[in-house]
Amino acid sequence: MELTVLGCHSATPRNDAHTTSQLLAIKNHLFLIDCGEGTQTQLRKARVKFFRIQHIFISHLHGDHFYGLIGLVSTFRLLGREKELHIYGPKGIKELITLQLKYANSWTNYPLYFHELESKVSECIFEDDKVRVSTIPLDHRVYTNGFLFEEKPGPRHLDKAAIDALEIPFQAFEKLKQGKDYITASGEVIPNQQLTSDPNKPLRYAFCSDTAYHEPMIPIIQGVDVLYHEATFLEQHVELALKTKHSTARQAATIAQKADVGSLILGHFSTRYADDTLFEKEAQTIFENTCIAEAGKQYRF
Amino acid sequence: MELTVLGCHSATPRNDAHTTSQLLAIKNHLFLIDCGEGTQTQLRKARVKFFRIQHIFISHLHGDHFYGLIGLVSTFRLLGREKELHIYGPKGIKELITLQLKYANSWTNYPLYFHELESKVSECIFEDDKVRVSTIPLDHRVYTNGFLFEEKPGPRHLDKAAIDALEIPFQAFEKLKQGKDYITASGEVIPNQQLTSDPNKPLRYAFCSDTAYHEPMIPIIQGVDVLYHEATFLEQHVELALKTKHSTARQAATIAQKADVGSLILGHFSTRYADDTLFEKEAQTIFENTCIAEAGKQYRF
Repeated sequence: MELTVLGCHSATPRNDAHTTSQLLAIKNHLFLIDCGEGTQTQLRKARVKFFRIQHIFISHLHGDHFYGLIGLVSTFRLLGREKELHIYGPKGIKELITLQLKYANSWTNYPLYFHELESKVSECIFEDDKVRVSTIPLDHRVYTNGFLFEEKPGPRHLDKAAIDALEIPFQAFEKLKQGKDYITASGEVIPNQQLTSDPNKPLRYAFCSDTAYHEPMIPIIQGVDVLYHEATFLEQHVELALKTKHSTARQAATIAQKADVGSLILGHFSTRYADDTLFEKEAQTIFENTCIAEAGKQYRF
Repeated sequence: MELTVLGCHSATPRNDAHTTSQLLAIKNHLFLIDCGEGTQTQLRKARVKFFRIQHIFISHLHGDHFYGLIGLVSTFRLLGREKELHIYGPKGIKELITLQLKYANSWTNYPLYFHELESKVSECIFEDDKVRVSTIPLDHRVYTNGFLFEEKPGPRHLDKAAIDALEIPFQAFEKLKQGKDYITASGEVIPNQQLTSDPNKPLRYAFCSDTAYHEPMIPIIQGVDVLYHEATFLEQHVELALKTKHSTARQAATIAQKADVGSLILGHFSTRYADDTLFEKEAQTIFENTCIAEAGKQYRF
């Protein structure tokens, strides 16, 4: 997987503080997660081919997470897009986007599908043979979901030496990759483990923004390789976090620790703090493997 | 007057091509004209105090002219704005903005007034003792208005030497400034022209975007000091201008010439052209006093 952070600040876009948006390259997909104002400009800076984005996941209907969506939908049309686009987001997102298209008298010339969400429990919202995406219900001032992106287990790796030694024909390879044993012409059963090794470990990425400290998410994100969790405030402003249903860096780190994740990326920083590394330092007192999101930066895992 | 161009390109925002927005300082007002995506970031770059903007004029409901409006309205709230805000734009703009506020569950904490326009003839939409703003009906794919900003004549200038010579008391100054004659204690009438000189010439600025070549605008903008007129295309693509109801640089210059304006500023350039000065050169063959808009540039007149 490769995660590109396009924006990681809260509230209002500024010259050097872009609001939330991320791009996740997972298997053969390029998923866009949230789309604050200015996201299309950030996508151009990152030299992303727009038509590669076919699925957009919107966590909630606050402006700093989706006011760039209508512009992107319109730009896709102006660029002559033909591929279908799927938008996943809270109920209401279809009305919001289509009303703007109606008044602009500019319907898309590509198929546009809305998948409106309203469940309060985690649900699978996208699945194919390689990837599954599920919601992570969060606790914010409006209906909000995080998203869990999971690779499915890939095929087992063939052990070339063992296969050559037994002169197994290539027609049998597909079933070996699927984990099946091999039966020779004489009826002998060769256990799969003698001919293959384990596939790459499927990776899991959890995106959790915006939310108050919310332990019910822990079972859903348990053991993910990477957790992005919002940290709008430092602990010194914990009362603001409580009031606005956001998290502090310390709270984000506590979730990471309790969910036993591989690493933690913090974001959604309030622009009141001059130095974003303060978030990293505060979180690392609880959960060491923490880093901060930076707009334009790529994270490979 | 001072005009700050915040964006002057068409269609989609790019790293160095911001969509339409302008800021007009006229008398004691700071008017925002159109508000494409990213306008609030451009306002920050121009170091504008946000609360000074109390009137926003939206020409039409295409994204490159108003997708930045909802973000700006939201940011005003986050900044604790208390002053009222007036938005002038095509019918539908109220529904579009309030629907987004509804789903964000974030109503403004300042008074927000919508002035929806649907007239097809020019009408005065704002007036106080110093300034008048009228619509300029244009010809585009959706209902579109340009805007004419006019200073009202200011007070006459007192001739200090003449006033001192006649020992006229200061209580009489206000009426002299209004153009009234002075009557001495003995009943002698001193004509106003002997005591004052003409006020500054009231300035007029016309903003015309987006539009096809549209001669009916000429009587409304006749003789304005400065005309901003869109020039999306060069004459080599006149068939695209016809099809999309935009103008070429040559057409914009023809309007400027026929309306006998003081100077012409071109904008709304298609990003298909690598060099925006081509617009200037083409227009200057028809109307010499032409310049091109540049994002971040100020024009004083």
